[in-house]
Formats: sequence, C-alpha cells, structure tokens
Amino acid sequence: MSISELSVGLLGGTGEEGRGLALRWARAGARVVIGSRAADRARETAEQLNRILGSDAIGHGDNQRAARSDFVLLSVPFQHAVSTLEAVQQELRPGSILIDATVPVSFEKGKATYAAPPEGSASEHLRARLRAEIQLVGAFKTIPAHSMEDLNEGLDCDDFVIGDTGDAKSSVIQAMTSIAGLRPVDAGSLESARTIERMTVLAIGINRRYKIKTARFRVAGL
Amino acid sequence: MSISELSVGLLGGTGEEGRGLALRWARAGARVVIGSRAADRARETAEQLNRILGSDAIGHGDNQRAARSDFVLLSVPFQHAVSTLEAVQQELRPGSILIDATVPVSFEKGKATYAAPPEGSASEHLRARLRAEIQLVGAFKTIPAHSMEDLNEGLDCDDFVIGDTGDAKSSVIQAMTSIAGLRPVDAGSLESARTIERMTVLAIGINRRYKIKTARFRVAGL
Repeated sequence: MSISELSVGLLGGTGEEGRGLALRWARAGARVVIGSRAADRARETAEQLNRILGSDAIGHGDNQRAARSDFVLLSVPFQHAVSTLEAVQQELRPGSILIDATVPVSFEKGKATYAAPPEGSASEHLRARLRAEIQLVGAFKTIPAHSMEDLNEGLDCDDFVIGDTGDAKSSVIQAMTSIAGLRPVDAGSLESARTIERMTVLAIGINRRYKIKTARFRVAGL
Repeated sequence: MSISELSVGLLGGTGEEGRGLALRWARAGARVVIGSRAADRARETAEQLNRILGSDAIGHGDNQRAARSDFVLLSVPFQHAVSTLEAVQQELRPGSILIDATVPVSFEKGKATYAAPPEGSASEHLRARLRAEIQLVGAFKTIPAHSMEDLNEGLDCDDFVIGDTGDAKSSVIQAMTSIAGLRPVDAGSLESARTIERMTVLAIGINRRYKIKTARFRVAGL
C-alpha cells in the first residue's frame, strides 16, 4: 500500500504526543484522523495542526471514527489504554493494525520510574486484553513528544518496532520509512517492550540530568 | 587524576571484551593490567595486545594483581562474576572503583534472553554481595566486544554509566572521556542496570536480525 492510501487514526490524538504523531504522519503523506473522547477537542486540534501544515490533511472525529483506520495508533496515557481500547475494539476492521505507543511511567519527586505491569510490559498487558485477531505492534515509545511535535527539528533518530505478527510489523516498518528523519528498527517480539519501555524512562532520566527535553536513541553500527 | 596516572586492572581480561577494553584504555593513556585466573594466558594476551599497539603499555598478572588498580574492571561472563569478585575482594584498595561490565544473558536456539537476577540486574546482584565500602559503577555493558576490539573502527557511540555513589560515577565518566570515539552518558543509579543490561540483549537481537555484529547505541538530542 502506498503511503497516500494509508489511513492513520489516533486514539487520544489531542495530547502532545498525539499531535506530534499526527503531524509527522501527515507530512509523510498519510491520511490522518485525530480521535478524542471529546469530538470538539479533536476538531480544534485538527484545525490547529492543519494551520501548521498549511493544508487540510488532518481529519478528526471521536475515537470510534479514528479506530476505523488502517493503522490505529494508541497515544493515550497508559492508565487509560485499556478503557480506550475497550470503547473502540468493535470498530477495528479486520486487517487493521493497532500500534501501541504507551509506556507505564510513574513519577515521584520528579523522578520517573518504570511501572511494570504484571505481564512484563504495556504491550504485553494490552495483548492479553485484545481479541486474538487484532494485530498489535509496538512503536513510537521512545521518541519524546517534544521532538515529535517540533517540525522545525529533524527527528534524526531511530524508532524500535516490535510485534509478534511478522507481517503487521513489516507493514508498520515499511510505512514508517516515509516519515522524514526516522529510521524504524525491527526490535523483535512484543516481549522486547520490556526493554523499549524502560528505555523511555532512561531517556526521561537523561533529560532531567542533562536539562534537555530531546533525548532519544540511535542504533550505531546499523 | 590525569589519565596517565590511572591504573586499570581487568578481571578476566583475556576474553574478547576484556581485550577490547584493555586496548581502548591503553590507547587513552591509562596503565593497564590484564588479569586472569591463568597468569600465563594473561601474559600471552598482554604480549599480543602490545604488538597491536606497538608499545609495552599493557601489563599482566593474576586477577589479584589486576585488582590492585584504581579502576578494577569486571569483564568475565556473568555466571563467574561473584566467584571472581570473592577471590579478589581482599585485594581491592580503599578508594578504588569496581566497574561492572557484566550482563546476564542466556541463549536458546541462537536467541538471546535477559536472565534477570532476583535483585533486578547484574549490578544490583553484585552490589548486594560486596562490602559496603567498595564503590561499584556499571559501564561498558552495551558496547559489543567486536566493536571494542577492532581498533580500525571508531567506537562512535555512547556508553551508559550508572552508580549509586556520585563521586565514583563522576570519576569513571571523567576518565572515559579520554577513550576516543566514546561518549559516557550518566544513566542514573545502579537500578538503571535493569534497562542498560536489557539494551545489550536488544542489541544482540538487532545484530541477529540485521546480520551485523556492531549494533550499539547513541543518544540523539544530547
């Protein structure tokens, strides 16, 4: 499928991370739908982002509408991930791919800690709660929202893509090559989420220690 | 302390990783001692590495001798870490810093899995077994031995340095800036070993999937 035929729906697309993902996918040429529990907020966000892009590439609707896309991207805080999915699970089309970008982090006195779910990671936690026929891929976990949203800065980093369904993972990797400055790296099965999600917390700690907002990863030697 | 005054002893310095570390530290200007349970092997390795360097910068001895250094670098396979440390713990001088480069990995059918110790990571496992006055820093966990040993290739990557004693961590970071092509990154407390050690397993998986031997990490945006 060419990128211009690809529809990308964002569940919880009005947050900083969702906005950044919408901008980057729209720039790549995909048809983007911002979803939100509050359809008004989705419309406002879409209008704002379209002004930035100087186009009307980004549509909007409730989460149910966003869920009727080829790629359905979950970019809500982890604690809302399951309830968000439960509300839209019936809307997911056969063959569509759910992309989990969540990371369970808890903050105490400004210090981030990884809050491992009993299944080992957010992606495995969600996998255990989804119908078997829904294809789940993990991606966009380690890139800071700040870097994602700032179109003046190149992404200039890698993103780790994981999944237990090789075809779904390949489709996501293939489409991601259209996002400028981002190199998707096949990081293995969903179990690798235990590593990738912790890397997000590592990056948050590096940001704090070095007083930056942009720490993200590249794989050297690849 | 200037790098030329710094002594670096390698416990288990005859393996691929130990050899690479010896070469890089010697190039940086430190006085290196290769240690081994078999003093003969240490001598052979030191002679071989000195030929590569065209110098006699690298000394040798048993692990006890290597342990009487400013930095004592543990580069044995994780399953031998505790017994190696027990054999030399009395030799460690006050003020010397033990650098843990171990990662607990198990392999099954070529696939690497992180074998988390009950304490959460190798570094925490060792910390729980060391006398309180011994300063422990984790470093050199994610750089592949292959890249470390090949002096024709620049390291061109970051290394994650962790520790619960800020001064010891700072000393190691400071000295590491003398190693060409390597940028030390303060990655927080010893608990971050849970992330860093898993990243080694991630890199091994990336190596396998992409048929390379050199996957390592850089922090972008820093």
